[in-house]
Amino acid sequence: MSDGAAVRIGILGLGRIGTLHAELLARRVAGARVTRVFDVDGARAAAVGAALDVVVAGSATALLEADDVDAVAICTSTDTHAALIEAAARAGKAIFCEKPVSLDLAAVDAALDAVVDASLTFQIGFNRRFDPAHAAVRRAVADGVVGAPQLVRVTSRDPAPPPLSYAATSGGLFLDMTIHDFDMARFVTGSEVVRVSAFGAARVVPELAELGDVDTAVVVLEHADGCLTTIDNARQAAYGYDQRVEVHGALGMATSENPPAHTGSVRTANGTASSVLPHFFLERYAAAFAAQWDAFVAACRDGGPGSPGVADARAPLAIGLAALRSRAERRPVDLAEVDPPPLSRPLTTSPTQ
Amino acid sequence: MSDGAAVRIGILGLGRIGTLHAELLARRVAGARVTRVFDVDGARAAAVGAALDVVVAGSATALLEADDVDAVAICTSTDTHAALIEAAARAGKAIFCEKPVSLDLAAVDAALDAVVDASLTFQIGFNRRFDPAHAAVRRAVADGVVGAPQLVRVTSRDPAPPPLSYAATSGGLFLDMTIHDFDMARFVTGSEVVRVSAFGAARVVPELAELGDVDTAVVVLEHADGCLTTIDNARQAAYGYDQRVEVHGALGMATSENPPAHTGSVRTANGTASSVLPHFFLERYAAAFAAQWDAFVAACRDGGPGSPGVADARAPLAIGLAALRSRAERRPVDLAEVDPPPLSRPLTTSPTQ
Amino acid sequence: MSDGAAVRIGILGLGRIGTLHAELLARRVAGARVTRVFDVDGARAAAVGAALDVVVAGSATALLEADDVDAVAICTSTDTHAALIEAAARAGKAIFCEKPVSLDLAAVDAALDAVVDASLTFQIGFNRRFDPAHAAVRRAVADGVVGAPQLVRVTSRDPAPPPLSYAATSGGLFLDMTIHDFDMARFVTGSEVVRVSAFGAARVVPELAELGDVDTAVVVLEHADGCLTTIDNARQAAYGYDQRVEVHGALGMATSENPPAHTGSVRTANGTASSVLPHFFLERYAAAFAAQWDAFVAACRDGGPGSPGVADARAPLAIGLAALRSRAERRPVDLAEVDPPPLSRPLTTSPTQ
Amino acid sequence: MSDGAAVRIGILGLGRIGTLHAELLARRVAGARVTRVFDVDGARAAAVGAALDVVVAGSATALLEADDVDAVAICTSTDTHAALIEAAARAGKAIFCEKPVSLDLAAVDAALDAVVDASLTFQIGFNRRFDPAHAAVRRAVADGVVGAPQLVRVTSRDPAPPPLSYAATSGGLFLDMTIHDFDMARFVTGSEVVRVSAFGAARVVPELAELGDVDTAVVVLEHADGCLTTIDNARQAAYGYDQRVEVHGALGMATSENPPAHTGSVRTANGTASSVLPHFFLERYAAAFAAQWDAFVAACRDGGPGSPGVADARAPLAIGLAALRSRAERRPVDLAEVDPPPLSRPLTTSPTQ
Repeated sequence: MSDGAAVRIGILGLGRIGTLHAELLARRVAGARVTRVFDVDGARAAAVGAALDVVVAGSATALLEADDVDAVAICTSTDTHAALIEAAARAGKAIFCEKPVSLDLAAVDAALDAVVDASLTFQIGFNRRFDPAHAAVRRAVADGVVGAPQLVRVTSRDPAPPPLSYAATSGGLFLDMTIHDFDMARFVTGSEVVRVSAFGAARVVPELAELGDVDTAVVVLEHADGCLTTIDNARQAAYGYDQRVEVHGALGMATSENPPAHTGSVRTANGTASSVLPHFFLERYAAAFAAQWDAFVAACRDGGPGSPGVADARAPLAIGLAALRSRAERRPVDLAEVDPPPLSRPLTTSPTQ
Repeated sequence: MSDGAAVRIGILGLGRIGTLHAELLARRVAGARVTRVFDVDGARAAAVGAALDVVVAGSATALLEADDVDAVAICTSTDTHAALIEAAARAGKAIFCEKPVSLDLAAVDAALDAVVDASLTFQIGFNRRFDPAHAAVRRAVADGVVGAPQLVRVTSRDPAPPPLSYAATSGGLFLDMTIHDFDMARFVTGSEVVRVSAFGAARVVPELAELGDVDTAVVVLEHADGCLTTIDNARQAAYGYDQRVEVHGALGMATSENPPAHTGSVRTANGTASSVLPHFFLERYAAAFAAQWDAFVAACRDGGPGSPGVADARAPLAIGLAALRSRAERRPVDLAEVDPPPLSRPLTTSPTQ
Repeated sequence: MSDGAAVRIGILGLGRIGTLHAELLARRVAGARVTRVFDVDGARAAAVGAALDVVVAGSATALLEADDVDAVAICTSTDTHAALIEAAARAGKAIFCEKPVSLDLAAVDAALDAVVDASLTFQIGFNRRFDPAHAAVRRAVADGVVGAPQLVRVTSRDPAPPPLSYAATSGGLFLDMTIHDFDMARFVTGSEVVRVSAFGAARVVPELAELGDVDTAVVVLEHADGCLTTIDNARQAAYGYDQRVEVHGALGMATSENPPAHTGSVRTANGTASSVLPHFFLERYAAAFAAQWDAFVAACRDGGPGSPGVADARAPLAIGLAALRSRAERRPVDLAEVDPPPLSRPLTTSPTQ
Repeated sequence: MSDGAAVRIGILGLGRIGTLHAELLARRVAGARVTRVFDVDGARAAAVGAALDVVVAGSATALLEADDVDAVAICTSTDTHAALIEAAARAGKAIFCEKPVSLDLAAVDAALDAVVDASLTFQIGFNRRFDPAHAAVRRAVADGVVGAPQLVRVTSRDPAPPPLSYAATSGGLFLDMTIHDFDMARFVTGSEVVRVSAFGAARVVPELAELGDVDTAVVVLEHADGCLTTIDNARQAAYGYDQRVEVHGALGMATSENPPAHTGSVRTANGTASSVLPHFFLERYAAAFAAQWDAFVAACRDGGPGSPGVADARAPLAIGLAALRSRAERRPVDLAEVDPPPLSRPLTTSPTQ
């Protein structure tokens, strides 16, 4: 499309995240315009359409085939992502998809193959890559300021656990929550993961044990370049949304700390009191969500592949599957065990291109 | 108006700040609706009206008299504020006005008298009171956590000086920039100012000297309760927008520090490198601007007087006039010198009610 | 001994750490007096004796048997600790011993049995327990402020690797360096370790690989109460001595951060520059070394068992041996594998009593 | 004296600060040796002499004339400083003197003239110049990193007020406490002070008002180069010893913040709790006291004039006298009013040479 024209975006799925994206695209993102929205819940679609003054499509298919749609944002439930990606690829639209593409590697490959075969712009919703502080950590590594990565620490803790029902369909902590951290480990190091050791238990919500899920976990990743990443997750952090990344390299350390909810503090004879952390991801990653869309719009305009792209959409799922097996079998699991090279995509694609 | 209905707001003046307010009210503030906008620049008004899907009024008077306008936001140039306040008061509208009301105390009194006589909701645009960190400092004082205020420090520095032309009409640093800090000193201490000593020079823009203005200044305020406030201002801070408040009391100290632009940092053998400060007020006070409108909408709904209100709109101007005289005459100036009690409003109104 | 009298201490071994302890005891520790010193290097002993105005003993045995010695500080090379502990026990002296007691569990047990059988005061040199910040983390856990520990993170990185020759005799990174972190994990959680998973490589000093040693490592500890501890170590941190501890519990998180070398910083348009970390342990743990001696002197005076004591001297070695096996065999190793319960001391002793 | 030989120092006055210096010099300062001590309290002198194994001189004169004394540290009460400096100058000894030299400018001039005429090494006890963080601020200015100083802020608050009796003899807050801050303002800016405006009251100890003294104060200094310094002092800071310095210049800002008492913190749903500040100057300035002596010993060895030297010993007193008059007369006071140029020393001497 001409550089001047706005990228016309259709949004599939108007849940919490889909509606957030719709509002960002409609009001904040320069060079983007929301032209169609759709949700299986017609009333919800009508409400969002009215609020944003956008046409509500009659069906996902209708939206995908609309002439005034250059790109689609897939924000529906995970089990529908793969099929919608393939349909969007057939329609020749640029694609943004929320993570994960699927909980099944074969389904992921089929969907991503369709995207690659059609040479379309594709971006996966790993929004944290666009957080200014996390991005500064990646930049310090990419620029060689901290030298070759040797130790990486990723802390990712939610303020409160989701409903039990969610755990049953989300794939569990490793595929739903830690998957962001698997991506972060690949992003900041620029190196693929070759072996996974996972540990965890249901410390906060005992019922999760019956579902084979955990709410408190540690994962150790061994990278192709020898770097060691430790991830720790908790579904419940009483003090707020805890998101930190650290890379220790041969020449130094790059760190992304938590911002406070505000910068006020009080000192008395009893010590110093300051604020909690931001409550949750909408506050913590507001800037990242906007920057994510700027990147997608830029990729659509120059027709690039998009980043994080197909390789980035696939690798974290394989790591998550290895983590599930590692915890179940109490042993380190090589990635090749869950993703045999012959069948897998070449991992030569840089995790950060 | 009924609690359920949205407060219908008309916006007068669509410059940088007026447009910001229009967008906030149209899209972010629950319970508010922008029904009319006006600007002397018709093209500008048309553009904003179209972007926000709002009717453009034919004149300020038309907007003030429109039936679908419950409240007006006065964001025009300072020299028009007083007259518009009086007109809005005659029309019986709730009023939000950008600071300052006027550079002339008599004009301020006339305008505010009209508001008080009509018992209308009035709020002056001292947005910093709504910053979560500054508000936490005030709360620590109000709750008695830090004891009686003894020493207050306010630092307020802009990243870069405004154009020379601006200095000529704005009233200069003390009335345009420091006026926010005079309000902050009253807000956090809850005590009126009785004597002012001002110091300053044109260190960055020598041409300001010819206009009798300064770009670097210190002001010492003596409060009625004995507290001493020191304010330091600079029109140019190479490292960003520097906004800090501190209250030292008998039992402790409350502080509002600058947030960093982001929370990433890098440690090497050369030391630790982290980010600059937020570039300017739109980034630094985004939350404060939204909270300011929530407060105004709430006041409109319950028909309260509004806060910061009439006393808060007036007092900082008197302090600014005393500061101008103090610097010119190189001596402390009692507030009574520039604002003789008989003519002045009773200062019994608490600066924070 | 009478409460009034000073504890008379004899010091065995006057290397870097022994001399540090001698100076602290001679000059800083109230209630302590250094009465005898000894080192196999006679010249060294003479120099220290002269500097501190203390009698140089003719032999370790002579020092252990001297009437004016109430307690001994064993600061000799690791391979001599066990025998000296047994000799000191026979002589009925209170004992402070640098870590580790030995690299061999059986030798440790023999030495500690002698101490227990003689009911003597015994303290092992895990000085970090006495760091005010680390101690505050332990206190927050012990007081229940952060709730039951669920995730613990210990970072321990040296500024530069020791000479290769040292690696050959020290037992390697896990037994020489990580052993402090194994103790820290037991200290802050108050829970024993039951399973160990270790990862690591020689990233900085490749020659270490030939010695079966590593310079960069991660260890995951599974505690009896279900808590997960991750430890990361590096023999080389370009930015200084990095020592952090964090406990995430059901109610909150307690953290011990690095102090900066100094608190100066500079902000410019390029960002904010501040200092490196303290260079090494003498600077970082100066307060801890003094507090360690205050605790030992108090224990000698009231005839208590001493803390960290016998159980604390033994457990970290067992964890270290499990870590060595875990890394060699690339699998989690139960502590019972390297320390069969029938032969081992009861681990019921609280790790923090 | 030969470079190799230690500087032999005699200490006059063994109160809190004199004893601190004696211990530092006897045990910590390379190249220094304490050879004689004296105090009018014989018992006290005997105790310190015994503890440090140093000869107790029979009188101040005897100490000053001893052959084994190269330099003297004058730590007696302020009213004796000037006479002892003159006596030491006659004896040709290098001189370290605690601040202030005297509360009378003429007496200061007489004493310093004697030092200058004899071309002796002289250092005044402004220890804060040697604090690593404050020194980093000065270095940033001297190196041009922050550009020409425009605004300086110095905060100096004690944890608790001294006994009333002390106030009567010390010269009061401005000459006893603020004098350190007057020196700091000259040190970090490198520019002399030309005008002083002082404000203050007895907020904590009302009895001070009867003595004409204050416990809470603000002083504004106008420098020769146009820089404005604001100093705020409090005799009582409930949260600890508060010592901060900040220089805002054309290119940036250099800051020296307070270190925490320790680096532990706890985050819960109620917020973040961390430590108080260091209790008082012995903890806060331990490193500075040692560095101060290293500088003096170096100056003695190379026969330099010493820094902070004669000009630095005199200027802060003049500023303090101007502050006293400014507060009494409620007006800015030119330094020339209290220190007429013809009689005064040339202020061309750089405040930081």
